[in-house]
Amino acid sequence: MIKEIKKIGVLTSGGDAPGMNACIRAVVRTALHKGLQVTGIYQGYQGLIDANFKEMDTRSVSNIIQRGGTILKTARCLEFKTTEGRKIAYDNLKAAEIDALVVIGGDGTFTGANFFSKEFEIPIVGIPGTIDNDLYGSDYTIGYDTANNTVIEAIDKIRDTAASHERLFFVEVMGRDSGCIALNAGIAGGAEAILLPEKETAIDDLISHLEDGAIKKKSSSIVIVAEGDQNGGAYYVAKKVKEKFDHYDTKVSILGHLQRGGSPTSFDRVLASRLGFAAVNEILAGNTRITVGLRGNEIKTTPIEEAISNKEIKLSPDLLEMAEIL
Amino acid sequence: MIKEIKKIGVLTSGGDAPGMNACIRAVVRTALHKGLQVTGIYQGYQGLIDANFKEMDTRSVSNIIQRGGTILKTARCLEFKTTEGRKIAYDNLKAAEIDALVVIGGDGTFTGANFFSKEFEIPIVGIPGTIDNDLYGSDYTIGYDTANNTVIEAIDKIRDTAASHERLFFVEVMGRDSGCIALNAGIAGGAEAILLPEKETAIDDLISHLEDGAIKKKSSSIVIVAEGDQNGGAYYVAKKVKEKFDHYDTKVSILGHLQRGGSPTSFDRVLASRLGFAAVNEILAGNTRITVGLRGNEIKTTPIEEAISNKEIKLSPDLLEMAEIL
Amino acid sequence: MIKEIKKIGVLTSGGDAPGMNACIRAVVRTALHKGLQVTGIYQGYQGLIDANFKEMDTRSVSNIIQRGGTILKTARCLEFKTTEGRKIAYDNLKAAEIDALVVIGGDGTFTGANFFSKEFEIPIVGIPGTIDNDLYGSDYTIGYDTANNTVIEAIDKIRDTAASHERLFFVEVMGRDSGCIALNAGIAGGAEAILLPEKETAIDDLISHLEDGAIKKKSSSIVIVAEGDQNGGAYYVAKKVKEKFDHYDTKVSILGHLQRGGSPTSFDRVLASRLGFAAVNEILAGNTRITVGLRGNEIKTTPIEEAISNKEIKLSPDLLEMAEIL
Amino acid sequence: MIKEIKKIGVLTSGGDAPGMNACIRAVVRTALHKGLQVTGIYQGYQGLIDANFKEMDTRSVSNIIQRGGTILKTARCLEFKTTEGRKIAYDNLKAAEIDALVVIGGDGTFTGANFFSKEFEIPIVGIPGTIDNDLYGSDYTIGYDTANNTVIEAIDKIRDTAASHERLFFVEVMGRDSGCIALNAGIAGGAEAILLPEKETAIDDLISHLEDGAIKKKSSSIVIVAEGDQNGGAYYVAKKVKEKFDHYDTKVSILGHLQRGGSPTSFDRVLASRLGFAAVNEILAGNTRITVGLRGNEIKTTPIEEAISNKEIKLSPDLLEMAEIL
Repeated sequence: MIKEIKKIGVLTSGGDAPGMNACIRAVVRTALHKGLQVTGIYQGYQGLIDANFKEMDTRSVSNIIQRGGTILKTARCLEFKTTEGRKIAYDNLKAAEIDALVVIGGDGTFTGANFFSKEFEIPIVGIPGTIDNDLYGSDYTIGYDTANNTVIEAIDKIRDTAASHERLFFVEVMGRDSGCIALNAGIAGGAEAILLPEKETAIDDLISHLEDGAIKKKSSSIVIVAEGDQNGGAYYVAKKVKEKFDHYDTKVSILGHLQRGGSPTSFDRVLASRLGFAAVNEILAGNTRITVGLRGNEIKTTPIEEAISNKEIKLSPDLLEMAEIL
Repeated sequence: MIKEIKKIGVLTSGGDAPGMNACIRAVVRTALHKGLQVTGIYQGYQGLIDANFKEMDTRSVSNIIQRGGTILKTARCLEFKTTEGRKIAYDNLKAAEIDALVVIGGDGTFTGANFFSKEFEIPIVGIPGTIDNDLYGSDYTIGYDTANNTVIEAIDKIRDTAASHERLFFVEVMGRDSGCIALNAGIAGGAEAILLPEKETAIDDLISHLEDGAIKKKSSSIVIVAEGDQNGGAYYVAKKVKEKFDHYDTKVSILGHLQRGGSPTSFDRVLASRLGFAAVNEILAGNTRITVGLRGNEIKTTPIEEAISNKEIKLSPDLLEMAEIL
Repeated sequence: MIKEIKKIGVLTSGGDAPGMNACIRAVVRTALHKGLQVTGIYQGYQGLIDANFKEMDTRSVSNIIQRGGTILKTARCLEFKTTEGRKIAYDNLKAAEIDALVVIGGDGTFTGANFFSKEFEIPIVGIPGTIDNDLYGSDYTIGYDTANNTVIEAIDKIRDTAASHERLFFVEVMGRDSGCIALNAGIAGGAEAILLPEKETAIDDLISHLEDGAIKKKSSSIVIVAEGDQNGGAYYVAKKVKEKFDHYDTKVSILGHLQRGGSPTSFDRVLASRLGFAAVNEILAGNTRITVGLRGNEIKTTPIEEAISNKEIKLSPDLLEMAEIL
Repeated sequence: MIKEIKKIGVLTSGGDAPGMNACIRAVVRTALHKGLQVTGIYQGYQGLIDANFKEMDTRSVSNIIQRGGTILKTARCLEFKTTEGRKIAYDNLKAAEIDALVVIGGDGTFTGANFFSKEFEIPIVGIPGTIDNDLYGSDYTIGYDTANNTVIEAIDKIRDTAASHERLFFVEVMGRDSGCIALNAGIAGGAEAILLPEKETAIDDLISHLEDGAIKKKSSSIVIVAEGDQNGGAYYVAKKVKEKFDHYDTKVSILGHLQRGGSPTSFDRVLASRLGFAAVNEILAGNTRITVGLRGNEIKTTPIEEAISNKEIKLSPDLLEMAEIL
């Protein structure tokens, strides 16, 4: 029998991503509209353990849809990886009369949620929020589109100076083990070459390719290096290329944490709002241990275990082929 | 029997949209890579009639992926609506040995292409390029995402001043008969109400809604009005609302043509590149009178007649429901 | 004898401008650092009359330096224009033990401050905050640089579509009776012509100029029209030009209130911080009925009466000459 | 006796800066308007030696005012540091009948110009173009304002993620030996501390300051490190701080070359246009071996030798004081 849900909790966990605030707003406002109470849990799973809770009303989420980061903060939490930790968390939830949870985050967040909801009788729905776009079950994760735009704005700027000096730039972008941002940025940024974790590229092949291209013509070019690339990062790759082309002016740029911030794009705000809205509806429909995601143009659910374990590569074959041609 | 394709022409027609240049670039580079020649046709169908042609090489499309507008220009062309006009166009194509066409544009562009390819033996593939997102066969048209972002950046700015003065703003956005931009902007911009062409909203209902909301609390709010809304535009709606709330400070903002320009977003650049790449491949595969589009996360084709005639509404039901709640 | 200052009040009044928050932050933090207490006064002079006060600490102004609008809100206030209204305001200040005021705003704000400080013994320092840049005593007013950038970003977008369609655009920009934004935008935006309030331009002369230029070459161009221009606004000017060039495609864009919002530029944040810092120091030095401003690269004070009455035109002669040439 | 000037050459040299294109455009259009011919010299002084010249007309500089980088390219040139190199350059100028030069760049560019114009009878006017703002004779150099805005946009993004995770960020910004960008970014970005080349800061003092502030409160903060800071760069400083606060989460971000690119701000476009306009007028007035600059709100000239040798520090005392307080 499904216990009636009167109050839900919402938290953000793992790396922050632009659009998390828009998602929190949608969870809170949808839940209030459906007659639920909502508790904001601060600092992810750490906040569950510390009972770092705050009741949310409509005004708690006013004027945040356009803000980067997360008003609920986020943190990594080792204690929640232990049964003892999760027990404390559960007791806190009971004490606060929170009947269900919406968790916004990535891989690690979902893994924690899976353990927690199996051990204790607490319905949980996960929402994929990470700039890395490395989760199964949603074509896009919250924050990915904003990060892509941040990256190409940076590349557009770097191209200005690269072209003025006829330089070769190695630009390292985020994404952990996923090459989604790198592939996207490479195509949208008009890069000469893209090094991806999902696809081995020998440095010698890169060098030959560059020899045929920009370096021969003495013009500028940009090589995108995913942070998860096997070769060892942009500095290493640049050094190896430089050994071969010592007469050529090369520079490295590690875009870094600015990729995590910024006002979310229209796409991320709408995606985040849709997923927050859907998550509350799923909880009210009695569903648990699932994630909500956008597939095609529709919102679909995925069992949380599948969302974690399915390592399907998200790089479209046409994009990979285009990367060679354009 | 399919005639061998050696040279293709590419043109942009109708209203311009950000990402058209990225699309032209992909068409040109893919075609060159596949051993084809490419002719750029200036000013849309007018350029077909005037034989306003220019051979394109790799460098013709260098450094344009990030630029708004279209380097091939665009124009409306009455003459192409006549059989005589299309005959001239065909003769020009033959004289220039152009074997197939890629046309980038909207409804009117596809209608012209349909007539033309039926009358004459010329393979044509259409690519949906319009900020209005009003074409069947692709979840997104080229330029729509950029326009959405331009609109929400404007709304974010307007909200700053609305909140400082506690004013009510009526913001009119583009989209012709489609409410896609308005609905998206309303949700992403956190609007109080959204007036859409696809959904009748009596002004009295709007007034009641505003009475319950912002005006009672004397805070700011924003009403999005689609340019195709039946009520007659933002000025008219604002006037009607003002009659009722004469003590309340209301302002109107017509965002206008800035919605058509700007550097394309990452999403639009990648979409445009994928569709340009696909269009050339379809031509080489012997297909004609089709459009290419993104459906879900895959590139799909649609018969051009269906793309024109299918008037399916593209507003997702969950978005419409959310518009009431958030 | 100068009364010792223990507590100051700060308010924003008149039209809001980006950077007002950065200025409030600087006033609050500088005052606290110097051992003063600070009261935020909401909704400008209306808040003085309504005793709409709130004590400010360091955290009250955290994370606002980058935000458009004003957290203290602003309003126009008729009652403060009467002696009775100002008497109420004074009594409220006394009751709250506020010893001095920093007022951020424009012409009208300074006029009110001048009356008020003459009638009652209350030291007041004014800070020029308005996008119009129409105040004597500071080369730049807070918000002007941000508005200039908002305008040229809009013009850059409009130029994309103007160039694609070879159209003539009339773009109306804000500035009330001042042509500062228009002149700046015209030069920075590469406009074909600029209509300014400070300089009569006969529409016939504009037409001749356009005939010689863009229209003859059938290319695109942009005409900037200041909202204070004598000819009657962009719609009227466009209509007149259209009568002469009926074959030519003309469009009008009224940029509107988005010019008032947005995250302040680096320049405006630093200017606002400097002026807020200086205003508190001036109050502590026993000065009153002055405004602080940036002249050259230094902060200077101006008697508030001179700031109001001096109508010196702020358009640099070289800019006016360049407008004809570039 | 002053030789009549019929043709001038224009080049960009040293590091590129946003606004150089707007400046080239102003030089070309002003010169053409005054009846001169204009030659574009590619790749700075290297182009003088290689006679890499191209005649410029009005259309050569169309649609570039908004573009980052420099269409004339730039390069460093060792050969021009030799008398032999400069002799070749001079012969090329004579052969091309170029009577005077406008050079846009920084310190090194002006030093080269000074030597060259002393050795040979060629009038030269320098225009300060560098993001570093490290030249005497102009309150602002071309590109500095754009770089400041690029930096604060990056800091705003980093602050989003810093605040969500309660982290301490060390952000390294450009500026070579000048702390202008760092000081400006620190104030406009609301930084906790700023390390400048012009002012020694012991790491122990930084640590004490951080201890009193953010770290004690366990909130986020940002430390700006100028690349020219004596302590040895952001990585080193972060490492030292980390040794003391090993429980605290610190991150480093080197903003890098994106600071050199991007569409110039309104301020930089107008500044660049004014200086380009002024440089041509100075040449026509028979002046040489000077630079043009903005001082206060007026265009002023400075002998090129003074522009090079005067090492006056450009950090305003009030900004330095504010950096401690805000």
